Amino acid sequence: MSEGQEVAGVRSFAADTLVEQVAAGRYQAPLSPQWDIAGNANGGFMLAIAARAMAQEAGRPDPVTITAHYLAPGRPGPTEVEVRVAKRGKRFVVASATMSAVAKPLLQLLGTFGDLTAPDHGPRIIDAAPPELPPPEACLRYGGQPGMPAMYDNVDLRLHPEDAWFAGGGRSGRMRVRGWLRFPGDAHTDVMSLLLAVDAFPPTVFNAPTGLTIAWVPTIELTVHLRARPAPGWLRAIFTSRFLSGGFVEEDGEIWDRTGTLVAQSRQLALLPL
Amino acid sequence: MSEGQEVAGVRSFAADTLVEQVAAGRYQAPLSPQWDIAGNANGGFMLAIAARAMAQEAGRPDPVTITAHYLAPGRPGPTEVEVRVAKRGKRFVVASATMSAVAKPLLQLLGTFGDLTAPDHGPRIIDAAPPELPPPEACLRYGGQPGMPAMYDNVDLRLHPEDAWFAGGGRSGRMRVRGWLRFPGDAHTDVMSLLLAVDAFPPTVFNAPTGLTIAWVPTIELTVHLRARPAPGWLRAIFTSRFLSGGFVEEDGEIWDRTGTLVAQSRQLALLPL
Repeated sequence: MSEGQEVAGVRSFAADTLVEQVAAGRYQAPLSPQWDIAGNANGGFMLAIAARAMAQEAGRPDPVTITAHYLAPGRPGPTEVEVRVAKRGKRFVVASATMSAVAKPLLQLLGTFGDLTAPDHGPRIIDAAPPELPPPEACLRYGGQPGMPAMYDNVDLRLHPEDAWFAGGGRSGRMRVRGWLRFPGDAHTDVMSLLLAVDAFPPTVFNAPTGLTIAWVPTIELTVHLRARPAPGWLRAIFTSRFLSGGFVEEDGEIWDRTGTLVAQSRQLALLPL
Repeated sequence: MSEGQEVAGVRSFAADTLVEQVAAGRYQAPLSPQWDIAGNANGGFMLAIAARAMAQEAGRPDPVTITAHYLAPGRPGPTEVEVRVAKRGKRFVVASATMSAVAKPLLQLLGTFGDLTAPDHGPRIIDAAPPELPPPEACLRYGGQPGMPAMYDNVDLRLHPEDAWFAGGGRSGRMRVRGWLRFPGDAHTDVMSLLLAVDAFPPTVFNAPTGLTIAWVPTIELTVHLRARPAPGWLRAIFTSRFLSGGFVEEDGEIWDRTGTLVAQSRQLALLPL
């Protein structure tokens, strides 16, 4: 499952997101406790599991665009993904799904699946650039220390020093988080790991100018456009928020691969910590 | 249904998006031919109809975040929206839906519904501003002439002169469209009309620097965050695209109301014209 080497004590994302078909349109996947934050499974991790079930049912390898609405926090244990295909087209398959734990719905999903390796001879216009980041060695590891969520042993996150509010410099005052992501041992970051990447970084609101508690920021909805399969190696990420109002905040993400290609674009709507 | 005055010969958005419940979770809505572009119903118009059915079934007035995947073009005639509630929470109700015409699925949807008028005493941080626009009188009416889609008789769109490629100045070279929107006679732009607004402007790629045909740009998926109910009067809109590659283009939209409040944020993934 991995192009890199196994690292002792580290959980493999590929192995922990495997799903098993148990009936027509029904898939089982245990939620590992090794990808949670304070007892709740990471939202991107759950999304990746559901997306694998949906892709298998769709018979298409890549989620071109996928949306998850979060209904309840995921706890370690058995889960099931029930997938219903809405349309089988020549190029795309559209499917909706429910991910549940013992009949309690956790996520409701909707996605269009295709093949991102299909040849493309069309035009290419990119009016953006990857975020400028100091090299990973000069960035700050997020997690990995005792007391930090287990998941940050399994994914290597390095934050831009300007955005690492916890490192002594305080909040940047700008709702922005930039950094690097890879798996330990350089395990392969496949297309599904981009779904983890868009929700693995700390919330942008931790850098808000004032008045916000550092606490869990529950996601209502997360939409991800997958634009290309990532090249192996470090991924660059940038997350920004511009509209914090009415108890809601949006968070826009971009994930770029080592070759400078935008591989995923995300937006989530989250509730502010009370 | 309308706070403004009726205008002769103009279809009312409110009247044309009414839905009628015919069974548990099932709603009927005729697709009027007056909101189409070259025979296909506008995607935002269809979204608004489906959202009304979903909101009614949810028992919550406002789509807080809603996603539609487009399966087939909508033709004038009867349609049905089948809604399934995934979770009834205290604050939000999550529902999925299928909009079909004679058993042929047109849209697959997923939304979280709530009440945007609920009191909010939380913080407010806005790191953005409405687009700068010349006054509506100094902008260029889009449509409204013979041969233009009927829908532009029913919604008054004015484009920023710099973005109005059809007006003689040619393409701006920047994938951007800015302008004003209201209904004729100043009919009320309610929260559902924002779903029309995010898909009513011409595609940003019509202003792309080169090589792109002016043709239908089919939407694969459209997600809208509704952030507030709009004040009456003109809405300001800005749409930009930054990533045109692999045969896909994303289009990011913002709708601001007359009081300078961001009322909707949208993103769609579309296929390039071949």
